[in-house]
Amino acid sequence: MQANTDLLARRERLLGRGMSTFYTDPVHLVRGSGVWLWDADGRKYLDCYNNVPHVGHCHPAVVEAICRQASLLNTHTRYLHEGILGYVERLTATFDPSLSTAIMTCTGSEANDIALRMAQAVTGKTGVIATDHTYHGNTTAVSQLSTRMPPVGGFGGHVRHVPAPDSARPLGGAPGAAFAAAFTARVEQAIADLEATTHGFSALILCPYFANEGFPDLPPGFLDGAIAAVRKAGGVVIADEVQPGFGRTGSHFWGHQRAGFVPDIVTLGKPMANGHPVGAVVTTPDTLNAFRKAFRYFNTFGGNPVSCAAALAVLDVLRDENLMENARAVGDHARHGLERLAARHDLIGMVRGAGLFFGAELMLDRTARTPAPDHATRLINGMKDRGILMGKIGVGECTTKIRPPMPFSRDNADLMLEVLDDVLATL
Amino acid sequence: MQANTDLLARRERLLGRGMSTFYTDPVHLVRGSGVWLWDADGRKYLDCYNNVPHVGHCHPAVVEAICRQASLLNTHTRYLHEGILGYVERLTATFDPSLSTAIMTCTGSEANDIALRMAQAVTGKTGVIATDHTYHGNTTAVSQLSTRMPPVGGFGGHVRHVPAPDSARPLGGAPGAAFAAAFTARVEQAIADLEATTHGFSALILCPYFANEGFPDLPPGFLDGAIAAVRKAGGVVIADEVQPGFGRTGSHFWGHQRAGFVPDIVTLGKPMANGHPVGAVVTTPDTLNAFRKAFRYFNTFGGNPVSCAAALAVLDVLRDENLMENARAVGDHARHGLERLAARHDLIGMVRGAGLFFGAELMLDRTARTPAPDHATRLINGMKDRGILMGKIGVGECTTKIRPPMPFSRDNADLMLEVLDDVLATL
Repeated sequence: MQANTDLLARRERLLGRGMSTFYTDPVHLVRGSGVWLWDADGRKYLDCYNNVPHVGHCHPAVVEAICRQASLLNTHTRYLHEGILGYVERLTATFDPSLSTAIMTCTGSEANDIALRMAQAVTGKTGVIATDHTYHGNTTAVSQLSTRMPPVGGFGGHVRHVPAPDSARPLGGAPGAAFAAAFTARVEQAIADLEATTHGFSALILCPYFANEGFPDLPPGFLDGAIAAVRKAGGVVIADEVQPGFGRTGSHFWGHQRAGFVPDIVTLGKPMANGHPVGAVVTTPDTLNAFRKAFRYFNTFGGNPVSCAAALAVLDVLRDENLMENARAVGDHARHGLERLAARHDLIGMVRGAGLFFGAELMLDRTARTPAPDHATRLINGMKDRGILMGKIGVGECTTKIRPPMPFSRDNADLMLEVLDDVLATL
Repeated sequence: MQANTDLLARRERLLGRGMSTFYTDPVHLVRGSGVWLWDADGRKYLDCYNNVPHVGHCHPAVVEAICRQASLLNTHTRYLHEGILGYVERLTATFDPSLSTAIMTCTGSEANDIALRMAQAVTGKTGVIATDHTYHGNTTAVSQLSTRMPPVGGFGGHVRHVPAPDSARPLGGAPGAAFAAAFTARVEQAIADLEATTHGFSALILCPYFANEGFPDLPPGFLDGAIAAVRKAGGVVIADEVQPGFGRTGSHFWGHQRAGFVPDIVTLGKPMANGHPVGAVVTTPDTLNAFRKAFRYFNTFGGNPVSCAAALAVLDVLRDENLMENARAVGDHARHGLERLAARHDLIGMVRGAGLFFGAELMLDRTARTPAPDHATRLINGMKDRGILMGKIGVGECTTKIRPPMPFSRDNADLMLEVLDDVLATL
């Protein structure tokens, strides 16, 4: 505890006030392996939160790929190198054949910053539609998509927000076709609104899993109407796959494939290279060429041989260890476990999710569906004290965010459920 | 050659048309060590260009630091970790004591994107002054500083450009005090111009070495007047140290120290971790806290333990191998060599630079100071064919850009000069 106090004081002195930490009493981590993390006191934690170490903390195959390539060559893409070509071939093979080209970046934020400009290059317009509870990254341009805090100089006026789909409180009043129709109507209205301005309408950007929105249960074809409206208006659809991509949802390699549509532009980040700073934009050749013609773009570190080796190793491990199928099977098992806990704990109002990205929405009242964000905060702190790391998320900030590394096992899930049962009993 | 044709075709298919390469016949690199690079045919090149592998390609101490930490733990800064604290302590110790805090990012572009928002947070205004031949990065916001190509939707109207200092053709007509006074006057005019708009004036951003502008020879105190004008107007000075930083100029660890001023905000990138994707913003606690209060900011990969280990290893190697002193000594030796070549080759109109960042400006006519960009293109291609990699840069695109890894030796410089002598004779 004293050690943590010292570290927090050094953080404030060196990194500024208000730099966010997880948990009331933050964790000081020193080691990770697979789904496990250890703190400086040797305490072991089951990691039910981190998606960046996608194939497991410090996976030896990824570490080996990084070390091998870092020892051999690491330079930029103005020289020719096989690494980026081999990787982009493997990566684009997982998409619809129309999405056959890519730009590699260092972060998902950089990828979304490019994606918005690609939409501008294709449409000649700048207006964007996003949901009102989303997060797409930290650059000046991408931050404009968040509703959190007005920037200095104000929002640019080119963004329209549509209500985040919330399957616990569906627009239209019912979780079926009316819910989808109500979402479509809001998108159509935002398009008309932007088209009436000098910005015009260029793109709808969304996470196809609506991860930050609390991964609502959506009926099949939920987005079909909205996407048709975008295309009818000459706009493009950007799928932000930073969270649901790389097999996390268990049934499909990409969130948009699970949602049943083909986007015009896809952005990738966090899990792509297991923590090595790598992101990408995947799109059609026409869109990429329009972007390259309208904007000059070069990224010094993007697509360097080490980044490509790390990212390729992640694809290899996903395949060799059958991790998408593991996500499906263990995710199903864990969600059924959460449903059994819901029968005993009234606080669990709803269980949602797919593959290894799921959680329970905590509600003060199941009928009124009253969010319980304070209980969620106490829950995740209580879990941490018992050696289980998870987060909270969603429109009401009351849904547990359980999104572990992909090698998470049934035994890991059972341990998490057992401790969750205990901690729920104390709330 | 056939192999390169195939690689270029794959690049166009996978990465789009018009992705830039160096040289008329691009190089296909497969290995690097120290100041040397090898292509796929086993051909060896002396690297006189790359500043990203700052302490040498694949330096074993940096590779070892990356491998060790990647095997141990790699996660984000919402958990506590000693790595970022130890590194930021070491990093900020190289600056004026006022510059004691930092935000770590993955790229210099991300750093400049933050720096512009820091200036907004401090001043409440958004107008920026940059030079008309600069480049500060690739995000939507930072691209607005470049004059190259108007973005879709147009420039934001909040940027004013001042003429890049060009010591071959000095504003004010002479290279002394009149040159500095003319630059100051243009900055004052730009401030007044911005203050007359709704944007107001927030920041002057510049590379203190004016690297992309062709590293002009500037009289001592050249920037004093401009900086005083910025401060008088309540604005802030952002020093982009992506190119001159980390001891490259030989006499000082940072370009602004060589130029003799203390900036409010400093941005770092390329050489910081020898090619591992790391950047940073260094500033005063007040500026950092104003930014954190005005904008929410989190960077998933920024400041992760592996990035910090790599960056710390670079600082260690710079110290242990005395590389700043090497840059000074070898840079002096090489510049004197260039001056000897100028006596024999009329094409060399001017020799400029400091430490291991220097070059010769090629001119068709020394008296008229007519730039010779086509000769510069032929020169760097000719050098490449003879196994020496360098670039060209500057206002006239006719200055050789010689900016090798920091362990560049006198023997390396002599080899470069010998080949340069031969190639100049053929132009």
